[in-house]
Formats: sequence, C-alpha cells, structure tokens
Amino acid sequence: MLEQARKREELLEAIEEYIREKRYAQLRDLLLPMAPADIASVCADLGEEVPLMFRLLPKELAAEVFVELDSDEQEMLIQSFSNTELKEVLDELYLDDTVDIVEEMPANVVKRILRHSDPEMRKSINEILKYPEDSTGSIMTTEFVDLKQSMTVEAAFKRIRRTGPDKETINVCYVIDEQRHLIGLLSIRTLLLADEDDIIGDIMETNIISVHTLDDQETTARALSKYDFLALPVVDTENRLVGIVTVDDAMDVLQEEVTEDIELMAAILPSDKPYLKTGVLETWKARTPWLMILMLSATFTGIILTRFENSLSACAILTAFIPMLSGTGGNSGTQASTAVIRALSLGEVRFSDLLRVLWKEFRVSLCCGICLAAANFVKMMIVDRWLMHNPEVTPLVALVVCATLVGTVLCAKLVGCSLPILAEKVGFDPAVMASPFISTIVDSISLLIYFRFATLLLGI
Amino acid sequence: MLEQARKREELLEAIEEYIREKRYAQLRDLLLPMAPADIASVCADLGEEVPLMFRLLPKELAAEVFVELDSDEQEMLIQSFSNTELKEVLDELYLDDTVDIVEEMPANVVKRILRHSDPEMRKSINEILKYPEDSTGSIMTTEFVDLKQSMTVEAAFKRIRRTGPDKETINVCYVIDEQRHLIGLLSIRTLLLADEDDIIGDIMETNIISVHTLDDQETTARALSKYDFLALPVVDTENRLVGIVTVDDAMDVLQEEVTEDIELMAAILPSDKPYLKTGVLETWKARTPWLMILMLSATFTGIILTRFENSLSACAILTAFIPMLSGTGGNSGTQASTAVIRALSLGEVRFSDLLRVLWKEFRVSLCCGICLAAANFVKMMIVDRWLMHNPEVTPLVALVVCATLVGTVLCAKLVGCSLPILAEKVGFDPAVMASPFISTIVDSISLLIYFRFATLLLGI
Repeated sequence: MLEQARKREELLEAIEEYIREKRYAQLRDLLLPMAPADIASVCADLGEEVPLMFRLLPKELAAEVFVELDSDEQEMLIQSFSNTELKEVLDELYLDDTVDIVEEMPANVVKRILRHSDPEMRKSINEILKYPEDSTGSIMTTEFVDLKQSMTVEAAFKRIRRTGPDKETINVCYVIDEQRHLIGLLSIRTLLLADEDDIIGDIMETNIISVHTLDDQETTARALSKYDFLALPVVDTENRLVGIVTVDDAMDVLQEEVTEDIELMAAILPSDKPYLKTGVLETWKARTPWLMILMLSATFTGIILTRFENSLSACAILTAFIPMLSGTGGNSGTQASTAVIRALSLGEVRFSDLLRVLWKEFRVSLCCGICLAAANFVKMMIVDRWLMHNPEVTPLVALVVCATLVGTVLCAKLVGCSLPILAEKVGFDPAVMASPFISTIVDSISLLIYFRFATLLLGI
Repeated sequence: MLEQARKREELLEAIEEYIREKRYAQLRDLLLPMAPADIASVCADLGEEVPLMFRLLPKELAAEVFVELDSDEQEMLIQSFSNTELKEVLDELYLDDTVDIVEEMPANVVKRILRHSDPEMRKSINEILKYPEDSTGSIMTTEFVDLKQSMTVEAAFKRIRRTGPDKETINVCYVIDEQRHLIGLLSIRTLLLADEDDIIGDIMETNIISVHTLDDQETTARALSKYDFLALPVVDTENRLVGIVTVDDAMDVLQEEVTEDIELMAAILPSDKPYLKTGVLETWKARTPWLMILMLSATFTGIILTRFENSLSACAILTAFIPMLSGTGGNSGTQASTAVIRALSLGEVRFSDLLRVLWKEFRVSLCCGICLAAANFVKMMIVDRWLMHNPEVTPLVALVVCATLVGTVLCAKLVGCSLPILAEKVGFDPAVMASPFISTIVDSISLLIYFRFATLLLGI
C-alpha cells in the first residue's frame, strides 16, 4: 500500500509538470497505457486540469475514464464539453453506464444528455429510469445478444460478430421466441465447442434462473454471486426478456449494500457518497437523528439511577462499576447482534431458526459471563481492594458486581441475537438493531439487575 | 423472502417423501432442473440422506453440487464414497475448487483425495497448497487458456476448442512466450471480431494489469472489482504466468473479508464458519478475549469515579447522567470510526488524508454536539426538573451536563476518526479500532470532562 501511494504521488507530479510545460504529447503517452480506473483516480486530485487531460485521450478511452469518475467530476466535465464532444462521449458509453450518470446529474444536465443521445438510446434510458431505485430494473442493461432457437451455430456467430461490438457482454447469449419470451441461454463456450450446423434450440440450456425487473437489486446481486454467473437475465411480469445484469454491476451493488449495512449498524443514515466527498452539513444530517434518539432514550437509565440514589449513597463504591457493567453489556450484545445481522444478510439464518439461535446464545453467554465474572472477582480483590487500598471493595460487593455481570451478559446476548431476527420478520432492516441500539437497551437492563442484586445481597 | 422460505419447505417435504417411498426416478427428475447451489442448500437440511441423493445425480451435476456444500457435508460424503466414486467426482472438479476442499479436510481425507487425483492434478494441488493462506496464489486456478503470439486467430480457436472444456474460463485468453512470461491477453470477444488470419501478437492487449502470487487476496479481489475484469492473471517473481483468479472467487473473497471486518468491528475474533455451524465453545473462544480486555480496561473509569466519589456525594444527581454521556460519546465515536474504517477499506481515505479527516470531523462534531446539547438542555428542564419534580436538576447542573456533551462528542469523533488511520499506518487492521474499543476510551475521557466542568461550574 505504501509503495502504491508513493507511485501515485510521482505520477501526479509528472502529470502536473507536463501540463504546466504544455508537453501534451508526452502526457498522452504517459496516460495511454494506464487503466481507465487508474486515470479516473488521478483525475480526482487534479481539479481544473481534468478537461484538458480528457481531450488528449482517444475517444474510447475517454469514455471509459468518464464512467469511472465521481459524479461531481462528471458534471464538471459535461459542463465544459461542447455539444459535439458530449455526443462523442455518449456514443461510446454502454447504456447502463449512461443511466447511472443520468440518475446522478441535476435536471439541466440530464436534459442536455438526453438531447444529444441518439433516439434509440434516449428511449432505453427513459425506460430504465422509470424503474424504482434499488430495483433490478434500475441496474440492468438492455444491450445483450439475443438469438432465435431455429438458428444454426454458424448463424449465431454471424449475429454475434455483427451486433457484438455494441453489447455489454457476449459471454452469455439469450434465446427468445417471437414474443420476446426468454426460452433458453447459451454461453459463448458452448457455442464455440458446438458444431457449425448444430441448432441453437438443441444445445441451449433451458433451466434458466432469471430475476424480475422489480426484484431488489441486492437479491439479484446475491443470486449472481451464489450461482457464480457472469450475467443474469431480467424478465418482466410476462416473462419477456427486457435486460441483463452483469457481474461487475452486481459487485458494485454488493459493495454499496455492505456499506449501507455497516453505516446503519453504526447508527448513521446511509449515503452513497464517498467519505471525503460528503459535506459537513450532510454528514451532520446523517449522524444527528440516531444520536438524538439514543441520547433521549438514555432518560430511562437516568430515571433508574435517580430512583436508587439512596442505595448509591449508602454504598458509594457501587457507582464505580457502572461504566464497566454497561460497557461489557453493550459489547456482549454487540457481538451477538452483529453475528446475527451478518448471518441474516448472508442468508445463513432465517426466522425459523430463532429458537436455535436463542439456545446457542444462551449457552455462549453463560460461558462468557462466568468466565468474565471469575476474572473480574480476582481483579476486584487484587487491584481494587489490595493494590488501591480501597476497603469499600468487600468480597460481598465483588459478588454483587460479578453476579450482575453474568446476568447482564446473558440478557445482552439474548436481546442482541433476537432483535435483529424479529426486526427482519416485521420488515425492518435488521442492521438498525446493532451496537448503539442494543447498548441503550442493555444499559437499563444491567442497572436494574445491579440494584436488584445490591438490595438482595447488601441489604441496602 | 417469505415466499422463498415456503417454497423451500415444500421442496424439502417432497424430497423426504420421495426418499421414504423410494421413488428415486421422480426424485431425480425433481433435482435435475435445479441449480447446483440450490441442491446444496437443500442438502444442508437433509443429513443422512445426502449420499443417497447424491448418487442419483449425473456425474457433472454431482460434482457441481459437491463444490457448493459446506466442508462438514463434503467430509461426510467423501467418507461415504467408494474409491471409484471419489475419483469420478474429483475428475469433474476444477482445480481451484479441489484445492479449496483439500484445505478444509482433515489429513486422512486429504491423503485419500491426493491418492485418487491424476498425477498432474496432484502436482498442481500441491503447488497451490504451498502458497500462504489469504495470498492470491491460494485462490488462483492454473486452468487457463494460453496462446502463443505467433498463432493466427484460426489456430487460437482450434486450441480453445481442444483445451477449452477443461478450463475454468475461456472468456479471457493469455499470451505467453517460450519462458511462460506473460506478454499479452485477449478477450474471446476480440478473437471473435477478428479475421481468421489475424496474428495474435498483432491484436492482443499488451497493457496488462497482473497480480503477484504473494499479493493479499483482498487486494487482488478489489483490483478485479475496480477494473471490472472477469479474471486477473497471476505471475511469479520472474513475471511468469502461473495462474488466474476469476471473478466468482473474487466475489467470495470480498464477502469473506467484509464478514471478517464486521466481526472485528464487533470485537469478535474472525472465523470462516457460518453462524449456525460454529459450536458454542468455538463462539465462546472467539468472543471472550476482547470482552475480557475491554472489561479490564474499564478499570480506568472505575478509578476516575472512585477519585471523584466525594464530588458525586456532594451532588448526587450528577450520577444519573453518566450513562447518557458515555452512551452518546460511544455512539459519536462509533459513527466516526466506522465511517473511516469503511472508507479506508474501500481505498477512499489514505494516511495522507489524516488532517482533512480530522478537520471534517471537528466541524461535524461541533454541529452534532451543539445540537444535542441544546436538545438535552430543554429535555432536562422540561422532563427531569418539571415533569419528574426533581429540584436537584438546576439550570447550572444542566449546563454542566450539556457542556460535557459538547466536549465528549468532540473528543469521541476526533479519537474515533484518527485511531483507525493510525492503526493502518502501523500495520494493524483498522477494523479493530471500532465501536467497543473507541467506547472504552471515550468513557474515561467523558468522565474526566464531566468532573472538570462540575468542579468549575458547581464548585464541588
């Protein structure tokens, strides 16, 4: 990683020098062998020089770089393009990339893009735009190779050679009937290994796994990953083939969804912008709501503590262990809820497993709780009582703390593992039931257990 | 999801009925059109009937199902196989899948597998097994299509048709010289669109992005995703082509690495087994170490509280707000650290961005802190003082709590955003610097701020 960072610095310096000294031919030679994603990543640090650099690239490479840029930079570039330049870039783009760009741009830029796309492209863009956000329809492309079942393999290859250059992938071809119903599919490998006069209908695969335009994009991406496919066909309600989702888009979707899950689990409202590109106000808006809710719900712990104020003044040392107890409770709950949330999202756990999960967490929490309690008892006797010379830390006080520890870990793990499953059952995103939420609930529970044991064992 | 679960139940019942009534032909007809991954997922719920079901499947499908099974079930099946059956399944497997299986099996099963693989397979397995875990070499396959640069397109197709059936992918072909150095690559699309007498050396792509056998598998998977490739060539230190990594394996690696990150972030030691397959003892072992460390480090908060015991008895109401303060501090820190950890792992943030990140979090935390403090002041005046009739909650006490809130959020966010970056810089996994770790540190800081403000404003 360090070496990569250094190489990047050197590259940036070289580019800036070439631009300053107007050595454009050399700059072009430097950029030509680079991968589009790498050029795009350099652009992010260049700012105003991007349009200039962009004009040096050959059309096709320029379009590939354009797709990889952040939407801010894309907008800036489109604003700087002449109409001819815009049309040239648009002609090189694949349909699904154009749709992605259009979705991110402000209205006036969208109008300009649509005006300069050819009529067929414009129709397809409008069609994909009408699918709801996060639906499979919104990430599919309509540029796939379709074949008829009566074709010979030779005719199929002719069709692929003729139409292939404009298609997103030719690795899988789809067989449709007159009404565009999906009836089979063929990998390019099957085609290559077949005889020239084989009939498509005889060699095509007819057990097809397809997804629906309105299916959630995450479900589709997971299916692609599960079945190790390079593309999945997308059909409408009448089983007519309307598009395909390719593996590269599926990977992007999975990455976005994981980021969203992780953000939810940290009590952040999800955004799809990179960290450093999100403004202060935007970040503030994403973070304050949950902080506020969780802060206000801590009122309960406040009420519990106020109610037991007298017990606490009778045995002031009890206060010293409250942060440790609530911390351990929170951490135990977080472990259980995180493990279950991930298992739910990978499809390893379902609602019907609830009892198995509870039984497992019950046993794990007993083991963890007893283990922690034993360690804590020893620590309180040696560190707090003996080393710190605190006579208030009696064995009985240590017993109260350790019994609470076992009870807290038990409750925390049971609450932590069941809330995400219940949340999913009633249609919420289980990721919300993560660390911060669980900690807030467990805080109150652990205090109630603490004071119960204190009253019982210390008689206060 | 619900509908899927119901379908699954029906399917399981049908399969169990067919097995009970020995209607094997019908069972076979039921299974044949299913995808391998779906058959494997059903196997997980069937138990002892799996070997029987397995024998009904045609060889190729059986092998594909075998690859998708969990390692426990694979081991059980291998134990139940006759030597001939084992050899038949092994012959159908791709090399990288065999290696994955061998890595998970106990020694006696591994020996049996190696004994029944053909000599060339055995050599390749042993070669891949020598690469360290998590290295690119350990996930690559050596079954790729290689071409020579002097070949014509026609000759290349002949070679693909002859060797293709045994290769993991033919979508990308690699061009090597006499010493097996990687000198170019060609997609099957380029080959199909070229003329039959074109020379490979003239049409191949020579700007190659390759990875090294010892590169981290996550880096390789991210590169594949970044460049939207279907496969990446893997070279040794002398730039000789030794294998390829395909996109389906890259997706699996990314998924595993995300699970590992999420587990680390929840203070769980990572394991690669699914949640319900992990035993109670194993789960306990994965969870106790961090719980223990974090519990013991809470000794500091205990010491701080003991030191300020007198202040607390002078103004007992202060205790009631400790959980709220430490909760809000923990949550604020979690938000910042999670956002930064994810940005680091996606490559959006580097060490050189540290100051930018700190400046951003400084401003965000001021906004959040002030906002929360204002809400909390109003809440304390209305709920705690007025509704709960608690005269101890004076405006001055509320001021102490709210000032602490601002200070805590500020510290929490600054600590939360910088620790992951520093951890990565010194070579630790930044994911460890997540919620539980940050909360434990912030707990002490927020208490110190609290008592500082209390002494200052309340004069205790």
